Amino acid sequence: MTTPIAEAIRHIAVDLAVVRAAHARIAPHIQRTPVLSNAALDRAAGTTLFFKCENLQRVGAFKARGACNAVLSLSDAEAARGVVTHSSGNHGAALAWAAQRRGIPAWIVMPANAPTVKQNAVRGFGGTIRFCEATVAAREEACAAVQAESGATLVHPYNDWRVIAGQGTAALELLTEFPQLDAIITPVGGGGLLSGTAIVATATKPSIKVYGAEPAGADDAAQSLRAGHIVPQLNPRTIADGLRSSLGDKTFAVISSLVEGIGTVSEEAIVHAMRLAWEKLKVVIEPSGAVPLAAVLDRAFALEGLRVGVILSGGNVDLERLPWQT
Amino acid sequence: MTTPIAEAIRHIAVDLAVVRAAHARIAPHIQRTPVLSNAALDRAAGTTLFFKCENLQRVGAFKARGACNAVLSLSDAEAARGVVTHSSGNHGAALAWAAQRRGIPAWIVMPANAPTVKQNAVRGFGGTIRFCEATVAAREEACAAVQAESGATLVHPYNDWRVIAGQGTAALELLTEFPQLDAIITPVGGGGLLSGTAIVATATKPSIKVYGAEPAGADDAAQSLRAGHIVPQLNPRTIADGLRSSLGDKTFAVISSLVEGIGTVSEEAIVHAMRLAWEKLKVVIEPSGAVPLAAVLDRAFALEGLRVGVILSGGNVDLERLPWQT
Repeated sequence: MTTPIAEAIRHIAVDLAVVRAAHARIAPHIQRTPVLSNAALDRAAGTTLFFKCENLQRVGAFKARGACNAVLSLSDAEAARGVVTHSSGNHGAALAWAAQRRGIPAWIVMPANAPTVKQNAVRGFGGTIRFCEATVAAREEACAAVQAESGATLVHPYNDWRVIAGQGTAALELLTEFPQLDAIITPVGGGGLLSGTAIVATATKPSIKVYGAEPAGADDAAQSLRAGHIVPQLNPRTIADGLRSSLGDKTFAVISSLVEGIGTVSEEAIVHAMRLAWEKLKVVIEPSGAVPLAAVLDRAFALEGLRVGVILSGGNVDLERLPWQT
Repeated sequence: MTTPIAEAIRHIAVDLAVVRAAHARIAPHIQRTPVLSNAALDRAAGTTLFFKCENLQRVGAFKARGACNAVLSLSDAEAARGVVTHSSGNHGAALAWAAQRRGIPAWIVMPANAPTVKQNAVRGFGGTIRFCEATVAAREEACAAVQAESGATLVHPYNDWRVIAGQGTAALELLTEFPQLDAIITPVGGGGLLSGTAIVATATKPSIKVYGAEPAGADDAAQSLRAGHIVPQLNPRTIADGLRSSLGDKTFAVISSLVEGIGTVSEEAIVHAMRLAWEKLKVVIEPSGAVPLAAVLDRAFALEGLRVGVILSGGNVDLERLPWQT
């Protein structure tokens, strides 16, 4: 008998070798981000933490890795027709950035009410914005229209094997530098980072445990794992704007087979962890990037005394007003 | 004829070999801090910038290097009697931290009105605070009293060769990683970081230019170089609280002989540069740490098209209220 999950696993198209190839492809373009540690945070968490600083990545987020791998994987003929995606967040800016590095056009579909700062990020990297209404149907329609006009390749924010392989390169660097890790935690929104991380980590070190962390107000990954099928995220309520997406079939297949568990955290815990990271690590991280630390501080997983890698996913935040300021 | 400056230079007790020895001594204790770059900042500055992130150093500032070198340079007998300093800033916390690592007592003299956060930093590292009045005479008297009672060794925040050698290790790491640099800029308060940097850089690469940057409201280093003798800093007026000190005889000797020039910047330029660093580099830096970037953005030095190292000196800042928030 083949369960739906076992069936899905048979279709996982990324393995360690694919991630290694992705890393070789993107290495000249991305930052090899540093790993920070802090004794006070270790004491607060009861573990030894290794923070992989993807907030210091190009474009301020790990998204540069997946977007770059996708763009560089295109044939010259495909590349010449450009790329398109829907994202008002870091993936949109990352795809525009990656396309600019290859010298090809990028169209980024986003809702007309997307923050000016996000629009400017895309335009700053030479991307063309296509506005649409704020519904899934409208954005898919807008993407399809761009594809029909230009022949551009769709680069989905997470449900794309090239993107998943690219996101896995952060864990590849982390485990190369710190092979002694017992566990790795990443945030989970659409699941691209968590999927790439799980593929790399479990293939590199079978004993390692990989966990995802998400806001309680956008806990579709935890619900999906419990249900055994994708539970779409309706009406997410969280400050962590990078984690409001639903899983896709590819990321669900990987996560349901390779991830040990998903922890959920409150909004208060996210803001507390975010502030603590700024104060102790001296880095700017966005709310989404603080979610794994919040989970560790909450003892969401059994990690006492272990060595734990935490991926700080991004650092794009409005500096005018910080969430802990009243 | 021997000029006063030439006379002073003859007494410079730190050279490249001394800094290398300091680095070997402190390396197990400090962070080898990363170097960041950012294309948008390069465009704004008209140079290629290499940011050495001493804000990510232990205790959140380069001060950990000098304090650690001083503490580890003591004989066991000296060390057992402890160390003492006067500082309400990063050096006080750094000395307490270094003393704790060696398991010896540290007394930190600070004015009774020092911010609670600064007091807590010292106590968090096991240091003992001695309060005094907010005058130079009172703090020197308090230090002398501690020395008389305990036999503790005074570790001056900057006018101490062991401290200067320790601060030079940041430039040693930077130039080892990026030997192609044409210039290095550091902030200058008492001059320990600038002195250590100048000794290392000019000995490693005779063609390199080393510059200091300070607030126009605390421009004693620029005044001192013009006058040819130490001009004490009276009534400093700047947000950059790490740069309010006067030069000492040792740092003046080094700076007047090895440093190419001192640039001064406005308070507005400091806040602008600080915010830009947070936004683009995704790191938390304090106002003092933003002063060299402010000078580069202001074109205070002739650096067009060159490769310029910038030492981001520290990241200890009150996150409740940021200087650009009205």
